[in-house]
Amino acid sequence: MKAAIFRGGDIVVDTIPEPVPAAGQALVKVLSCGICGSDLHAAKHAHRMVAVTKRIPGRTPMDLSRDVVFGHEFCCEVIDYGPKTEKKLKPGTRVCSMPVMLEADGPKGMGYSNAYVGGYAERMLLSAPMLLEVPNGLSTDHAALTEPLAVGVHAVEKAALKGDEAPLVVGCGPVGLAVIAALRLKNIRPIVAADFSAKRRELAVKMGADIVIDPATEDPYAKLAPGKRAAIFECVGVPGVLQQMFEKVPRDARVVVVGVCMEPDTIEPMFGIVKELSLQFVLGYTPEEFARSLRLLAEGRVDAPSLITGKVGLDEVKGAFAELGNPERHTKILVEPWR
Amino acid sequence: MKAAIFRGGDIVVDTIPEPVPAAGQALVKVLSCGICGSDLHAAKHAHRMVAVTKRIPGRTPMDLSRDVVFGHEFCCEVIDYGPKTEKKLKPGTRVCSMPVMLEADGPKGMGYSNAYVGGYAERMLLSAPMLLEVPNGLSTDHAALTEPLAVGVHAVEKAALKGDEAPLVVGCGPVGLAVIAALRLKNIRPIVAADFSAKRRELAVKMGADIVIDPATEDPYAKLAPGKRAAIFECVGVPGVLQQMFEKVPRDARVVVVGVCMEPDTIEPMFGIVKELSLQFVLGYTPEEFARSLRLLAEGRVDAPSLITGKVGLDEVKGAFAELGNPERHTKILVEPWR
Repeated sequence: MKAAIFRGGDIVVDTIPEPVPAAGQALVKVLSCGICGSDLHAAKHAHRMVAVTKRIPGRTPMDLSRDVVFGHEFCCEVIDYGPKTEKKLKPGTRVCSMPVMLEADGPKGMGYSNAYVGGYAERMLLSAPMLLEVPNGLSTDHAALTEPLAVGVHAVEKAALKGDEAPLVVGCGPVGLAVIAALRLKNIRPIVAADFSAKRRELAVKMGADIVIDPATEDPYAKLAPGKRAAIFECVGVPGVLQQMFEKVPRDARVVVVGVCMEPDTIEPMFGIVKELSLQFVLGYTPEEFARSLRLLAEGRVDAPSLITGKVGLDEVKGAFAELGNPERHTKILVEPWR
Repeated sequence: MKAAIFRGGDIVVDTIPEPVPAAGQALVKVLSCGICGSDLHAAKHAHRMVAVTKRIPGRTPMDLSRDVVFGHEFCCEVIDYGPKTEKKLKPGTRVCSMPVMLEADGPKGMGYSNAYVGGYAERMLLSAPMLLEVPNGLSTDHAALTEPLAVGVHAVEKAALKGDEAPLVVGCGPVGLAVIAALRLKNIRPIVAADFSAKRRELAVKMGADIVIDPATEDPYAKLAPGKRAAIFECVGVPGVLQQMFEKVPRDARVVVVGVCMEPDTIEPMFGIVKELSLQFVLGYTPEEFARSLRLLAEGRVDAPSLITGKVGLDEVKGAFAELGNPERHTKILVEPWR
């Protein structure tokens, strides 16, 4: 079958062996798979990602001398099941799943793995017990947004916001936009959102931001609702942003780190100390949050169409990676491997 | 009057003008004043402390071209009051107070101030409404420990521990020991404590630690009670400790930063993200926590005598600063300016 493969530091389209479902696994056709910022980062800084992963117990780093197929934001169609597997959802059923393969010794991540092909391929394997049926009426494109939305839903849950906080979302890429949507769904308002890109600020409003700020011309921290505890969502993920926040956030603020910064970062703890700041790093989502995100999309409670700015076939994945660098033009590009 | 003064980067004993209480102020005789690790740090890195303070809105840095008298852990005796001041506590009454002077435009810190003399002086000024009477039966020495104990009490409160966490205290200097005492008072156990010094580990046990670890020979993180959320208290305050914790703490751990690191520090956010860590920076205490700490000492609920390892007069302050570098020998040295 055909796949867009990360090979030798480049994205190439080639033929790879057809995946064969084992017991407990489903073979699915990939209908749509979103390109995530982490995929761009992984393509650019693969060696750094591997180096960090090696130092985290329980994680298996990618072997970059072998093929890796990215893609962890997918909507698929069931084709078949492995032996001795309950066929709960009929072939032809559209499904979403967390990008996790259940194995005897625990769940294994998919999308940055040599063992399992991700969603930039015509077909892939999923864990049968992880399959969630896409509700009738929800388009495939929108169902593919379940994963990124779940990231925002989880960030807001993990922050344990009580609803009386003053939220500020710094960075309105797909992660920041998902956080805005999740805040709005919990009615934690007014939501202030900051991004240098006019297009992104426009999308922030569509996702539910009440006030949008261009940090080049205005101070987003000055717009925080007074008298409430500030809850700042760091959705940028590059070195230096944390320290900038340490200096700018008000006393007793809560900083929720959703952006994934893979490089070392320098902070001055003294600012955190004097302001008694709290930081919550977050990652991923729970199965419940993932399922809830699919439901929220199906209920039309998130303006999904605004987020999708392009669709490409496997041959165009490499080009799409480059295009995504322009925030005025693109937010989420979906890969349709069947094209 | 006589004082041990921080002047030109050195501690010198000299005569300074007698303080005169204004309205709302009490003139007190300093009976005892503990030397804090922050005083040592301020003496060694005064310019750095000033540089950081300048960048924090609302803080007034020390003017190092002028005299500063350190000392913010004091027990005093009321001598007199300023004009138009309610004389609630009679002259001769022993008192403690937060090191804070109330002014028309808000509270001002004492101990690192050009405006107010700290406790390394024969006499000082305090805000009359801040005075807390030392309960009968509590010795002056032990009352002087109110301030450092309050730091530990506050750290445990601010961390919002629920009692079902697995606590680990890293660093058993006065701050770590106060945290251990506060954990024990809340019955959050078993308490694991780590320090390279045998003497400090012995004190940790006296303050309530259940398990003490020499990190040179054993891994303290391996001793965390299993099945509970880890609550790690960072009581060291030097660069590099945070990153070490990021690498070693278990998933979902809470790190409470009590140690005061005044230098820039480098972390790798990826470890925080993958483990979904939370960090709470803490500083100081509330008036309620300060008063509670005095009460806890008066009730004999903290083994105060173990903490005091020396007493000196003003002439010996400089020597005591040097002595405190040896953790095997000293924990808390009290200055008795009347000697």
